[in-house]
Amino acid sequence: MFRLIGALLLSVAIALVTGPKLIAYLKKLHFGQTIYELGPAHQQKQGTPVMGGLMMAAGIVIASLVFHPAKWDGAWDFIFPLLAVSLLSMAVGFADDYIKAVKKRHDGLSPWQKIAGQVIVAVGFSVYCYFSPAVGSRIRIPFFAVEWDLGIFYIPVMALLTIFIVNSSNLQDGLDGLLGTVTAVGSSAWTVICLLLMTVPALAGTADRNGAEVTAVFMISMAGACVGFLRYNRYPAKTFMGDTGSMLLGGGMVAAAMLLRQPLLLILIFFTPIMSSVSVIMQRYYFKLTHGKRIFLMSPIHHHFEKKGYSETQIVSMYAGVTLVLSLIAVLSILM
Amino acid sequence: MFRLIGALLLSVAIALVTGPKLIAYLKKLHFGQTIYELGPAHQQKQGTPVMGGLMMAAGIVIASLVFHPAKWDGAWDFIFPLLAVSLLSMAVGFADDYIKAVKKRHDGLSPWQKIAGQVIVAVGFSVYCYFSPAVGSRIRIPFFAVEWDLGIFYIPVMALLTIFIVNSSNLQDGLDGLLGTVTAVGSSAWTVICLLLMTVPALAGTADRNGAEVTAVFMISMAGACVGFLRYNRYPAKTFMGDTGSMLLGGGMVAAAMLLRQPLLLILIFFTPIMSSVSVIMQRYYFKLTHGKRIFLMSPIHHHFEKKGYSETQIVSMYAGVTLVLSLIAVLSILM
Repeated sequence: MFRLIGALLLSVAIALVTGPKLIAYLKKLHFGQTIYELGPAHQQKQGTPVMGGLMMAAGIVIASLVFHPAKWDGAWDFIFPLLAVSLLSMAVGFADDYIKAVKKRHDGLSPWQKIAGQVIVAVGFSVYCYFSPAVGSRIRIPFFAVEWDLGIFYIPVMALLTIFIVNSSNLQDGLDGLLGTVTAVGSSAWTVICLLLMTVPALAGTADRNGAEVTAVFMISMAGACVGFLRYNRYPAKTFMGDTGSMLLGGGMVAAAMLLRQPLLLILIFFTPIMSSVSVIMQRYYFKLTHGKRIFLMSPIHHHFEKKGYSETQIVSMYAGVTLVLSLIAVLSILM
Repeated sequence: MFRLIGALLLSVAIALVTGPKLIAYLKKLHFGQTIYELGPAHQQKQGTPVMGGLMMAAGIVIASLVFHPAKWDGAWDFIFPLLAVSLLSMAVGFADDYIKAVKKRHDGLSPWQKIAGQVIVAVGFSVYCYFSPAVGSRIRIPFFAVEWDLGIFYIPVMALLTIFIVNSSNLQDGLDGLLGTVTAVGSSAWTVICLLLMTVPALAGTADRNGAEVTAVFMISMAGACVGFLRYNRYPAKTFMGDTGSMLLGGGMVAAAMLLRQPLLLILIFFTPIMSSVSVIMQRYYFKLTHGKRIFLMSPIHHHFEKKGYSETQIVSMYAGVTLVLSLIAVLSILM
């Protein structure tokens, strides 16, 4: 448990310490994203540097490697995919941010380039899990202590899930402190779930116990990195995490969920980002079906709430409360 | 575990549903507290009704009784003191709020009346724990899995602790959403600690397992009540919890900590309210010693941060982050 405490404190510290220098560096490189369509009345945010997510990446990578339980032979079977999925997802986001902010080309990566990168990561990771003896094709059903064997369908279904979660995370990142707060709470919940998987006898066999320990170190590092990052990202934000950060966090969340064989728990723990995606999809289809009508004043749904008159901090508080409640339910579902 | 989910959802729902009616009722009774010395530049808050904490009390009491594990004979040995300490602490705060807000007497209860009420609750509860077979005079030392038998000193030390925690909670309640957010995170941490005490074999004997289950129901109700209450208390607040609410939460926190024999964990989980108290004490003594100099621009320390230029929502975010990190450490300390 000292490893977990060490990882938590180190990742907070790295994000806090690297923050000011990173922000100054990003500003110097003219990394201020031109804000066109991020939401209502955010024009004053022009000039805030994006790619602040890099400070979280530093915290997560260093803390989870330094406090990695190296003794167990299979540890790399977990830390490698956790880091690979989160960092490769981040790389796609980074490329997009970089083209937009540094190269000043507003369109960034083409949709096809983005999706191609994501598909490679998602399919690669799903195949990895499918063939990993510690994971396999069976997923747990929350609340019912049963497993569902997806067989070969595991690969396409989980690849789609990975892409969906990474993009949901990306879509939620639209208000100061929003995704960071939600992910701080959510990754704390995963840490607790890992603790239960490691220590409760009735849960033996639910997930690889050593793997759960590795995942706990990774997840508590992510929680710490979010807390440190929020120091600079809470309203009024000094930096945005960018696609860099949101895809990093989304990748980490989905990788942990799949390695623990609990992907369905994302519906609870990552409910608000998923809601962001779903609101965008609903808006688009409704618009097409009705030839021009809208369900929400604006999508993703957090901008709808903004247009309804809620402030950024009110929306963050609301999303944090919902995430806390659903995360507690997710933790309890494990023990059923 | 269905009991815990039920308690969580019911307490959120009660706070949310009773909120608007309670606020309207309090306003009608001219329950708006006259704000004189609550902090810098808060004059515009005059007219916001206090005693909004009553909606949390409703949520906690109803949810923790409805989902109380009644089958176990000793269950009342835990739920009775939890409710008694929190509600009697609340009663002292309520009397103060009522005199100030309804009777319009600015001085409220006299300091001696307040302290007398608190001493009765604190001594009564400490004596109860001392003689309770499920608690006794031995407390756990975090991180070291050892116990420390305070003997008869348990009673005065724990009575002082109870008074200290209730007043710390009261002192922290000075910014919109601050104490509610900190307590939502902190009581979630206690819920997780109870889950570990109930299920991890290595922790058998650390606390009464059935008692931990009862405490978990109480604590998750408190977390839910805070989340619901924050709907109306987040910046800009529609209601304040008042001494009513802050003493309720402080009483509940210290009661749970003592019944679980983990009072020292409050140093982590309830760190920021304790810091509020300590900052007030430091300020006062430094002022006396130096004949007029101040350490902080204003105490409690959250007003110091305000004077330094941080906004209310920034301070809440900062305190929430600190509480989340320390709560994770508290949870991990249990497993050492």
